[in-house]
Amino acid sequence: MTKLPSPDTPQRLSDLIEPTTRRRFLANASVLSLAIPGVGAAIAACSPGAEKSTDSTTASQAPATAAQGAASPILHNPDSRLDTSLMKGGHPSSSAAGTTPATTTYHRFDPTLPPLGSGNLKLHWRTKQLPIRISDTEVVAAWTFEGDIPGPLVHCRVGDTVEFTLTNDVDIPHSMDFHAAQIDPKQAFRSVPKGESVTYTFKPKWAGAFMYHCGTSPVLMHIGSGMFGAIVVSPREPLPAAKEFVLVQSEYYLADAANGLRAFDYNKMLSTLPDYAMFNGRPNQYMKDPIKVKVGDRVRFWVVNAGPTHPCNFHVVGEQFDTVYLGSPPGSAIRGVQTWDVAPGGGMCFELLCDVPGEFPFVNHGFGHGQKGGIGILVVEG
Amino acid sequence: MTKLPSPDTPQRLSDLIEPTTRRRFLANASVLSLAIPGVGAAIAACSPGAEKSTDSTTASQAPATAAQGAASPILHNPDSRLDTSLMKGGHPSSSAAGTTPATTTYHRFDPTLPPLGSGNLKLHWRTKQLPIRISDTEVVAAWTFEGDIPGPLVHCRVGDTVEFTLTNDVDIPHSMDFHAAQIDPKQAFRSVPKGESVTYTFKPKWAGAFMYHCGTSPVLMHIGSGMFGAIVVSPREPLPAAKEFVLVQSEYYLADAANGLRAFDYNKMLSTLPDYAMFNGRPNQYMKDPIKVKVGDRVRFWVVNAGPTHPCNFHVVGEQFDTVYLGSPPGSAIRGVQTWDVAPGGGMCFELLCDVPGEFPFVNHGFGHGQKGGIGILVVEG
Amino acid sequence: MTKLPSPDTPQRLSDLIEPTTRRRFLANASVLSLAIPGVGAAIAACSPGAEKSTDSTTASQAPATAAQGAASPILHNPDSRLDTSLMKGGHPSSSAAGTTPATTTYHRFDPTLPPLGSGNLKLHWRTKQLPIRISDTEVVAAWTFEGDIPGPLVHCRVGDTVEFTLTNDVDIPHSMDFHAAQIDPKQAFRSVPKGESVTYTFKPKWAGAFMYHCGTSPVLMHIGSGMFGAIVVSPREPLPAAKEFVLVQSEYYLADAANGLRAFDYNKMLSTLPDYAMFNGRPNQYMKDPIKVKVGDRVRFWVVNAGPTHPCNFHVVGEQFDTVYLGSPPGSAIRGVQTWDVAPGGGMCFELLCDVPGEFPFVNHGFGHGQKGGIGILVVEG
Repeated sequence: MTKLPSPDTPQRLSDLIEPTTRRRFLANASVLSLAIPGVGAAIAACSPGAEKSTDSTTASQAPATAAQGAASPILHNPDSRLDTSLMKGGHPSSSAAGTTPATTTYHRFDPTLPPLGSGNLKLHWRTKQLPIRISDTEVVAAWTFEGDIPGPLVHCRVGDTVEFTLTNDVDIPHSMDFHAAQIDPKQAFRSVPKGESVTYTFKPKWAGAFMYHCGTSPVLMHIGSGMFGAIVVSPREPLPAAKEFVLVQSEYYLADAANGLRAFDYNKMLSTLPDYAMFNGRPNQYMKDPIKVKVGDRVRFWVVNAGPTHPCNFHVVGEQFDTVYLGSPPGSAIRGVQTWDVAPGGGMCFELLCDVPGEFPFVNHGFGHGQKGGIGILVVEG
Repeated sequence: MTKLPSPDTPQRLSDLIEPTTRRRFLANASVLSLAIPGVGAAIAACSPGAEKSTDSTTASQAPATAAQGAASPILHNPDSRLDTSLMKGGHPSSSAAGTTPATTTYHRFDPTLPPLGSGNLKLHWRTKQLPIRISDTEVVAAWTFEGDIPGPLVHCRVGDTVEFTLTNDVDIPHSMDFHAAQIDPKQAFRSVPKGESVTYTFKPKWAGAFMYHCGTSPVLMHIGSGMFGAIVVSPREPLPAAKEFVLVQSEYYLADAANGLRAFDYNKMLSTLPDYAMFNGRPNQYMKDPIKVKVGDRVRFWVVNAGPTHPCNFHVVGEQFDTVYLGSPPGSAIRGVQTWDVAPGGGMCFELLCDVPGEFPFVNHGFGHGQKGGIGILVVEG
Repeated sequence: MTKLPSPDTPQRLSDLIEPTTRRRFLANASVLSLAIPGVGAAIAACSPGAEKSTDSTTASQAPATAAQGAASPILHNPDSRLDTSLMKGGHPSSSAAGTTPATTTYHRFDPTLPPLGSGNLKLHWRTKQLPIRISDTEVVAAWTFEGDIPGPLVHCRVGDTVEFTLTNDVDIPHSMDFHAAQIDPKQAFRSVPKGESVTYTFKPKWAGAFMYHCGTSPVLMHIGSGMFGAIVVSPREPLPAAKEFVLVQSEYYLADAANGLRAFDYNKMLSTLPDYAMFNGRPNQYMKDPIKVKVGDRVRFWVVNAGPTHPCNFHVVGEQFDTVYLGSPPGSAIRGVQTWDVAPGGGMCFELLCDVPGEFPFVNHGFGHGQKGGIGILVVEG
C-alpha cells in the first residue's frame, strides 16, 4: 500500500517520517532546529531587514516575462511558474521565473493569474525550509515549495502537458500531489527523501482552480506547514475576457515565538482553532496593498481552499457574483450568489462584473475563523 | 482604506471602536452597562412579565397592512419592514410596521415572508441595545437593528429601489451591509457614530435570500451580538405560488448571567463553540408555536445563515426538497435534496410540496451545533 | 408536539429518555453497563477472538443471494439488506441477509452497493447494543441497527415500496428516520420503548444516497453512538453501468477505555472534536483491504455523511470526478470536480472513470478531522 497519505497518523505521527527519528522530527516541527542544514542560519537571521539567507540555490528574481507572450502589466506575476522549458541555461530552479527566495523581509504575494505560456510547462521545484515573514510582527518557520507560502502559481490549459520534477533538499521526506492530475499517486505522488527527485507528467483534463500540496504523511502537518499552492487550468476555449486573480485560503496554527520565529504546531492543527486564516499566506495582506481593477472590468477569482480544515466562505462586500462555477468552467455555473463555500481541498471560480467604483473587501464570511486575516480589498477605480 | 471590516481585529479589538475607550467597550460588551441611556433601566426590568422598557421611541405595534395589497392572514407579519414611504406622519421609525420594542417579554419571531408592497421601499432603522428574552430562562444583552434579533424582515423584487437610512442611537459605532446591494461599501456601509445617520439607495439585481448585517469591526462581534437579518428579493416573474417563510440561522455565544442577563462573549465567539444555534433568534421557538400550512401547499423557505461561523445544514424531517435554488431563483436549481448546507454569510431558497399531513421538524442536521436550538416544526394540516 | 427530535436536549439530556432514570442512562451511556440484559456478557467477552455474544437473535450469516437476480461476485454484499419479503420461514431478522452479529472480532464493512432485488423491500430490523471492534486496538460500546456501524446498506429504486419494521430490544427508546421517506415523522419516526415495534411503509420519490438514523432525542447521542446508515435509491432509468460503492462517513467521540471498551461520550460530541472520522465505521479500513476495480471501470461512490457534525470533503487522490450529482441523479450534475463537501445529514453521488491503473486514496480532505481515519484505497487494476 502506498504510504501517502497514511492511515495511522494520529497514533504514529513520527513513525512515518523516515529517516528522521521521532525526537528529531519533533525538534524540527517545533523550531526547525539547527539540525537542518542552512535553516539554523536562516533562523538566526530572522529579524526585520535581515539579509537574505537561503540554504542553497537562491533563485533569480528576474521574472520570466521574456518567455511569455504579450503580457499586460497587470499580468506580470513574479509569484508564478511559467513555461520553464523555454528558458535556457542554468539550474532549472534558479532559472525559473521570479522566485521569492528565503528571506524574512515581508513581501506581498502577487495574486495575479500568470499569463499562459506557449503551451506546455516544464517545472522543476525544490522543497525549502525557511523563515517567512507574514506580517510586521510574525515570522513563521515554513515548509515550502520554492521558498514561499503558497507555492508558485501555475497556469495552463486543458490538454497542455505539465512535466513536473520535485527535488527534495531537506531532511524530511516530501512529495507533490497535483489535484489537476489523473495519475497513479502511488508512483507519481510518492515521498522522496533528501537529495532525491521525482518526475512525472500529466495533462489536465478539466478546467478549474486546483490545489497542489505535499501529500506526505501526516498530510495535515505538511499542508499546515505551508506546502500547498494552486494550478489554474483554463479551458481551451477562452472564458470571457477578465482580470484574473488567484486566492489560496489557508490556516496557520502556530507555536509561541522562539527567537522571533513561530513554528507550526501539529497539536493545534488537530484542535482546528487556527491563529490565522487568510489568502495567499499573509493575514490581511491585500488591505494595505489592494487588488486593483477598473470600472467595467470583469473580475475572475480562482479560489483554492488549501485548508487544511475549514471552508472558505467567499464573499465580496458590496458586490455579488454573477457567476460561480461549481465545477469545471464554462459548465457547472450558478448565478447571482452572495457567498459560496469552497471545501478544503477544493477550488472554484468566481466572477463579478465591476460596474460600480469603490473599495470592496473580499472576505471569508465565516467570521469565527475568517476574521483572523481572511480579508483583502478589491479597488474598482472609476 | 476602509475600516469596515478591519483586518486587525483579533489583535486590536477595542482600538477600532471609536470613540469609546477599551474599558468602556468591554463594559458595554459584558453587561451593556448603565452608561448607555435607557438600557440600565431595561436591564433592571428584565424579569418575566416586566413592563416594556425602551430607551426612546416605542414603535407602534400596528402592522402596516393598510399600506399593503391584499394580504392573506398568513402573510401579515409584524416582524417585517414594508414600504414605509407610503406611511404618513411621525418619525419614520415609530410609524413603521409592528416593531417589537425593547422588552424582556418573550415573543415569537414571525417567520412569514412579508407581502410585497407597492414597489419601492423606504426604510429608516435605528440601532438599539436592549435585553431580549430568547427563552423562558434566558435574556441576552442584544445589539440590534430596530430592537429585535434578527432585524426586520425585508421583502422586495429585483429592480425595486430600496432607500435605506440607519441612525445610530448608541455609543458604539454601527453600520449596515446589505448583501443584496451592489454599492461602494466604503461609503454606503461606513460606520456611523452615535447620533449620526447614513443613507443609501440600491436596486437588487438578483433574486434570493440575502443577509444584512452590521459590518463594523470587529464584524464577528457585531454579527455575533445580534445585528443581522434577511432581505428576500423575489424575481420579477413570480415563482410558483407558495407559503413563504424566512429562517435566519445564527449562533449565540454567551457569558454567564449577571443580574439575569447574559452578555455576548467575544472570546467564546472565537472559540467557535456556541451556546445556541437556532432560527430567528430564539432556540426551538417553532417547537411550541409551529409554522402551519395545509396539505397541498408548496412551502418555500428562504434560509439565510447569519453565522457568524457554522454552516446551516438545512433539512426537514420526513420530507425532501423538490427544489433547492443554489443561486438566484428561478435558475441555479437542483432537485430531490435531503439536506443542503448554507454557508455563513449566504442564503438559499428551499422548496417542498406538502402532500403528506403531519408534523415535520426542520433542523440544522449538523447536530453538534444544530441540536442547540436549531429545530422547529412545520405542521401540515390535513 | 413530537418528541423526536426534542428541542431541549442540551439542558435536559436524560429527561427525555423514558423510562430509564438519568442515573441509569448515564451509566448506559458511559459503559453500557450490566443493567442492560445481554450486553454485560457481550462486554465481558470483548477481547480479540472472543466467542460471539449476542443478546438475542444471532442472525444467519448466509447472504440472500438466492433471492436476488444475477449478482456479479463484486455485488455480493453481506452488509446489505435486501428484499426479505421473498425469504421464507423464521424470524424476519434472523432470516435476513448476512447480518454481522455481536462480536468483537474485527470485520471489514463491505462497501459494495447491494444489487437491486425483485422490486419491493420488506425489512425488519432490531436495535442492538454491543461491542464492535473498529481496529486492532479499539472496541466501542455501540448502539446499532442490526448489530453493526453503519447499519445495513439498503438499495431500491424510485417508486419501490419499502415496508420497514423496527423492534426495540434495548432499554433506551429508539426510532428510525429514513431521509428517503416522505411521511409524517410524528407517527412513523416515533420512539419505541423496549419490547415494542413500529412499522411504516414508504415509496422513495427521488434517487440519491440517503441517510437513515435513529431520531430519538438527543439525536446527537443516538447518531453519535452508531445508529445510522445509508439507503441508496437508484433512478428507474438506470444510470450508466458502473462499479458502485457506498461510503458512510461518521465521527466517533469516545471516552477512555474501561475494561477494554470505549463508550461514546456525549460531552465530547458537543465539543465537536472527534477521535475518529471515517468511512463505514472503521478508521482506515480500506487501507489494508482496499476497494478494487479494473481499468476502464466507471466507479460510482454513493457518499452519505452521517456526521453528526462535520462535512465530508470527499476527494480521490490522483483522480477527478467527472460527475458529481448535487441532487437527485441523473439531474443536478456538475462536472470536473476535485473535492466536494457533503453536508452532515446529506448524501451525494460521485462518479469517476478509472482509465489509469494505480492505487488511489479516497479521503476526507478536511484533514484536521479527516486525517483521523477518513481514508481508504481504490485500487484500479491494469
